[in-house]
Amino acid sequence: MVKTFELDTLKMRMGDAQLARLDLHQRIQRALRALILDGALGAGVKLPATRGLALSLGVARDTVENAYVQLHRDGYIVRREGSGSYVSDTVGAVLRGAGARVRSRRGVRAGQGVRAIQAVRAGQGGNAAPLKASPGLSRRGTTIFDSGGVTDQQAVKAFATGLPETRTFPVDVWQRLQRQVLKAHRDSVLLHGDPQGAEPLRRAIAAYLNLERGARVSADQILVLSSTRQALSLCAQLLVDADGPLLMENPGYFGARKAFEAAQARIVPIDVDADGIRMDLLRQDPSGASCVYVTPSHQYPTGAILSLERRLMLTRWAHENRRWIIEDDYDSEFHYDGPPTACVQGVDQFDRTLYLGTFSKTLFPGLRMGYMALPLELVDAFARARSIMDGHTPQVLQLTLARFMEDGHYNAHVRAMRKLYASRRACMLDAIGRHLADIVTAIRPPGGLQVPCLLQPGWSESQTIRQAAEAGIVLPGISRLYAGADRLEGWLLGYASLAEHEIEAAMLRLRHVLARTPLR
Amino acid sequence: MVKTFELDTLKMRMGDAQLARLDLHQRIQRALRALILDGALGAGVKLPATRGLALSLGVARDTVENAYVQLHRDGYIVRREGSGSYVSDTVGAVLRGAGARVRSRRGVRAGQGVRAIQAVRAGQGGNAAPLKASPGLSRRGTTIFDSGGVTDQQAVKAFATGLPETRTFPVDVWQRLQRQVLKAHRDSVLLHGDPQGAEPLRRAIAAYLNLERGARVSADQILVLSSTRQALSLCAQLLVDADGPLLMENPGYFGARKAFEAAQARIVPIDVDADGIRMDLLRQDPSGASCVYVTPSHQYPTGAILSLERRLMLTRWAHENRRWIIEDDYDSEFHYDGPPTACVQGVDQFDRTLYLGTFSKTLFPGLRMGYMALPLELVDAFARARSIMDGHTPQVLQLTLARFMEDGHYNAHVRAMRKLYASRRACMLDAIGRHLADIVTAIRPPGGLQVPCLLQPGWSESQTIRQAAEAGIVLPGISRLYAGADRLEGWLLGYASLAEHEIEAAMLRLRHVLARTPLR
Repeated sequence: MVKTFELDTLKMRMGDAQLARLDLHQRIQRALRALILDGALGAGVKLPATRGLALSLGVARDTVENAYVQLHRDGYIVRREGSGSYVSDTVGAVLRGAGARVRSRRGVRAGQGVRAIQAVRAGQGGNAAPLKASPGLSRRGTTIFDSGGVTDQQAVKAFATGLPETRTFPVDVWQRLQRQVLKAHRDSVLLHGDPQGAEPLRRAIAAYLNLERGARVSADQILVLSSTRQALSLCAQLLVDADGPLLMENPGYFGARKAFEAAQARIVPIDVDADGIRMDLLRQDPSGASCVYVTPSHQYPTGAILSLERRLMLTRWAHENRRWIIEDDYDSEFHYDGPPTACVQGVDQFDRTLYLGTFSKTLFPGLRMGYMALPLELVDAFARARSIMDGHTPQVLQLTLARFMEDGHYNAHVRAMRKLYASRRACMLDAIGRHLADIVTAIRPPGGLQVPCLLQPGWSESQTIRQAAEAGIVLPGISRLYAGADRLEGWLLGYASLAEHEIEAAMLRLRHVLARTPLR
Repeated sequence: MVKTFELDTLKMRMGDAQLARLDLHQRIQRALRALILDGALGAGVKLPATRGLALSLGVARDTVENAYVQLHRDGYIVRREGSGSYVSDTVGAVLRGAGARVRSRRGVRAGQGVRAIQAVRAGQGGNAAPLKASPGLSRRGTTIFDSGGVTDQQAVKAFATGLPETRTFPVDVWQRLQRQVLKAHRDSVLLHGDPQGAEPLRRAIAAYLNLERGARVSADQILVLSSTRQALSLCAQLLVDADGPLLMENPGYFGARKAFEAAQARIVPIDVDADGIRMDLLRQDPSGASCVYVTPSHQYPTGAILSLERRLMLTRWAHENRRWIIEDDYDSEFHYDGPPTACVQGVDQFDRTLYLGTFSKTLFPGLRMGYMALPLELVDAFARARSIMDGHTPQVLQLTLARFMEDGHYNAHVRAMRKLYASRRACMLDAIGRHLADIVTAIRPPGGLQVPCLLQPGWSESQTIRQAAEAGIVLPGISRLYAGADRLEGWLLGYASLAEHEIEAAMLRLRHVLARTPLR
């Protein structure tokens, strides 16, 4: 270990690319600090006099003096009147013994860190062998790590699910409204906002829900969030205890399952049929779970619409057993064969329904805005939880969205998209019929942004997914949405974000790669 | 209970203000639905023929027919060829018995809901008696409710803490950059983003931390979040199990304590002294906690700077005991007597530090943007947890901020604010000295956005807070920041968001109301 000062070592450190943008005195200070921390300059080592070092480096003496002043202030060196500057003994004592080993670890990190993390990334959400979680995680941290997280599609790609068409979004209108908001509310939108959400947006959402979704809510019941996922996290944390049961449709939305499991809820699956969640099974459930998660307007992934009779029975059951209904109305805006059935919240006479909506599907996912309509008695608990979890949603986005809704742009956009998606659905069903009739049976969805396709006997879900992936096509599998061993195999093909020629081209490519698929 | 159809009742329902914006056929449909759900039209009741009802209402027959079609499709009515339309028996059967009681509850809600919730609000975060949590909450939900949440100041007000000056923020520059971002990345920013954060922003943050905070990180280690609170929630969930211990400075930041407690961590307080957290107590801690929360650059609320020796001992301790250090560097940008000491992350040779930073103080809180610099081995777990918790931060904000940093606006703004706050600190200390010298002892803070003031004997914290509140002045108390019974009394007075004349005016008002305060 080098124990005395070496000018070349200092110069080498000063040349470190990380320091390139610093002022000269900062570079000297940082380089000396690094040498001390690495043990290259041990406790008690004398530093050169400022005048001498300045000469050697070809800089002004003040520059070196500035560096020494900060090193001294921070405790790295001691300065003795008339004697000079020395590496601090206390620092040296604390560091002693750790230096050598640590330097080698640093070397590993600098050189291989990026590659290591890339390897980690590559495994995320794919079919690669699961990585072992860090030993420094808690038990729940390990659960979250092992779940793999939620992998969102970050680019338009056939046939990823859940993505709306964003290329036609009226960005210019949005920007104009945002300028108006910043002009009108310049001071307040830069500050903190109400954790429950900006009042104008809550009013607009309540009006929308009452008019378009048959809900019965006031602005007081609306909680503005960043996403449905945040709503699900809050539900699990506030309504379910760790290791406590939570009822969920089977098959069901994997994002919800991950959010609930991340909050350590124990999922109790309840089968669905053509009319949605089976009330006979729900009534017999012995778990005592405090809430049930449902997607009544368009069951995920089967597309079943919960019948009116079951809606009423569900609310009655929730009332009589003091349970909560978590109603995820994730894409109800897009029903193509007449208006969607009114939401459960609207027919719930007992105030047992927590309604979840999102703007990710109707506007764009990058907005990060969703909301809940809550029973009044729950509003305060949810708003408080949100205030602790992450405060609130950026007010400028909230107020811009409020104007977008008030001025009629929202309804106009949803109407235009509904028309567009209806013709894309027709195109998609037609393309499946022409190209894949011998491989899958498509279920014509009454609404939503994707078509469920069941594989015909002899075709393997995992194998078709793999082969399609090699051709750059995403086939979101259906079997992972089932809780038990009794799983259907197939895909849930997204079409809303794809133009008709893109659907046709991707389907041709898919047909081509699957033509080679042997029977299993 | 009215069992037959009455035209006047229908008309009354159709006049409901909530339905005013609907098309005529929707109003008819909705009004009939409400009558059925309320039990006013019981099972089997015959509805008028479409022609007759159209005549009575003075509308086209098609309008009534449209309403009936949807009621039929949704299952509210059955239509018998040649006989007419009847309220569905199944709906009636499910509803039977619940109608009357429920209607009266609805009445209560419609009339008194808003007032009830306002009463709840008024109690939030104030000194009012705590409200009872809803019986429908889980145990952890009750903990969160009882904590009261975090009450952020939503307007500039003397002497609220933690608020920066937002009135001078260069909104025009920000908007220009955002327009550029939307033009350059129109398609991608509307879609989902990387849960770890946009790469350009992660690079800008890493460069900033390395240059300005003496950190040693790469962009791969940065996780972009919505706030420090979100970072704290993630830390508690990933590193600590429910009911598991977590070490925290005493006194310490209440926001952190609430976030940890909301995640059911058990806080173990470790006292601080003039050099920051006491390493002797930390070493003796028997709890086996996996992590410790510290504010080294400017301890909250004492303002103590963690000495270099303790920084090194802390990292050594974490290394040897496999603990994590959560370093909250919340306002290190604002040190007024020379540059701040390098962060613990920068001197941590063992990669045990999770660094937390925020833009709420340096830019504006409404932005909702914070970040972590993580040990590489933890990055993936945190990114996955974020993907489940709420996905990611809006990309348009991230990329705008990246440009703001790259183009030098960030550093320029921080420099300007540092200068401004330094003179406001001087003004604040001067005003306290002139007006409150007999009441408090101000501790001159080396940095940050607030001045700690200790009450002199004979003055009561709670009483002064109450009296100031009556005069519209916020006095954030200090005693609530202590874990044990051994608490100092005083205030933590924010000054950064107040112009000098506002500081003086508020101080005069405060002096005036406190002059009347009797000894306790």
